Amino acid sequence: MLAPANKLTLYTYFRSSAAWRARIALNLKGLKPDFKFVHLLKNGGEQYNTEYLRLNPQGIVPTLIHEDHVIGQSMALIEYLEERWPEPALLPKDPFGRARVRQIALAIACDIHPLSNLRLRTYLKNIFEASDEQQAEWQKHWIGVGFTALEELLSSSKETGKYCHGNTPTMADVFLIPQMGNARRVKFDLAHYPTLLRIEEEAAAHPAFAAARPEAQPDAE
Amino acid sequence: MLAPANKLTLYTYFRSSAAWRARIALNLKGLKPDFKFVHLLKNGGEQYNTEYLRLNPQGIVPTLIHEDHVIGQSMALIEYLEERWPEPALLPKDPFGRARVRQIALAIACDIHPLSNLRLRTYLKNIFEASDEQQAEWQKHWIGVGFTALEELLSSSKETGKYCHGNTPTMADVFLIPQMGNARRVKFDLAHYPTLLRIEEEAAAHPAFAAARPEAQPDAE
Repeated sequence: MLAPANKLTLYTYFRSSAAWRARIALNLKGLKPDFKFVHLLKNGGEQYNTEYLRLNPQGIVPTLIHEDHVIGQSMALIEYLEERWPEPALLPKDPFGRARVRQIALAIACDIHPLSNLRLRTYLKNIFEASDEQQAEWQKHWIGVGFTALEELLSSSKETGKYCHGNTPTMADVFLIPQMGNARRVKFDLAHYPTLLRIEEEAAAHPAFAAARPEAQPDAE
Repeated sequence: MLAPANKLTLYTYFRSSAAWRARIALNLKGLKPDFKFVHLLKNGGEQYNTEYLRLNPQGIVPTLIHEDHVIGQSMALIEYLEERWPEPALLPKDPFGRARVRQIALAIACDIHPLSNLRLRTYLKNIFEASDEQQAEWQKHWIGVGFTALEELLSSSKETGKYCHGNTPTMADVFLIPQMGNARRVKFDLAHYPTLLRIEEEAAAHPAFAAARPEAQPDAE
């Protein structure tokens, strides 16, 4: 028998899009973790506290604790949830569909998000004295490169439905929606991405996505 | 019944560490794909050819073709191989072990590799006029951040064996070994990472890893 859902603990920060992914996935599975809040800016970044680094040596959020095991990296965490709580499924059943969903999620997780997150922008500022404007341009550049490929992937495939893959949310949407949120935050022009916008609108009406938004979190500012 | 192995086609470039991962995984599974070579530098980058972009709108390698389906993103591709050819397994059986292996792979795939690959360095040069030296420093910085966390994750866990997880290769090693190769290429000082070095040495003696090295590829220069 599986452990009760209330034994899950999620280390999160309202604005982190990686933590946002974890929150969506947990909501979709109907799981209610205890939240522990890690403020990425206060006190030089609480993710660098010795205690937190013991759980997550990378010093990033999210981290999930379940049955005394510690899981870092949002995609590993979500694959774990999928294996332990298979319904509702966030991956399709057929291997090609699963590969497609993971490809979309990874195109965001590997090739958009890490190029525009906080620690990268901080480093850009430190070594190239990048202004706020240059940092925003940098973010927009990589979002544009990634979204152009995603729009093509999604608009050219019959597998795309109301969501990225079919008519119910999958791991692909779990990754897409927070990245759309990041894009809006830097005022990235989304006009050229009609498929992404359509999926974002669909998800906005879904309670699991709505409840996971940064502004809906207890630690929101 | 599964399609014969010779129906697999891999688009690869000898020096790409993402393609390198795919080659290791295919070798570990005993699969022999047809190779198609995509030169990332010649003619402005063959990954940007119209024909290739139709297969992989991100314009990156590797891409796998199987039964007329196209799979991009190395981790999606490797998860696909694992699902279709489960033996030898590249993920452990227990969910916590699977999460740990994926976490290690993703710490490389998301938080080291994308910050030091070719397209990022090109962009750094274009907008911040980063010199070759600054580009190398940039790469070393992110490799250092990532490897420090990995060394801690691996050295602090009893799950670590001859390889990252136990005594046989997993997806974690499939991602680690090419990243070690990249580190060596930029003359990153590996002295502080004894666990990573020990695993690299173990893998070097394994034929599946040896045959996947850039210098062993038909398109090597």
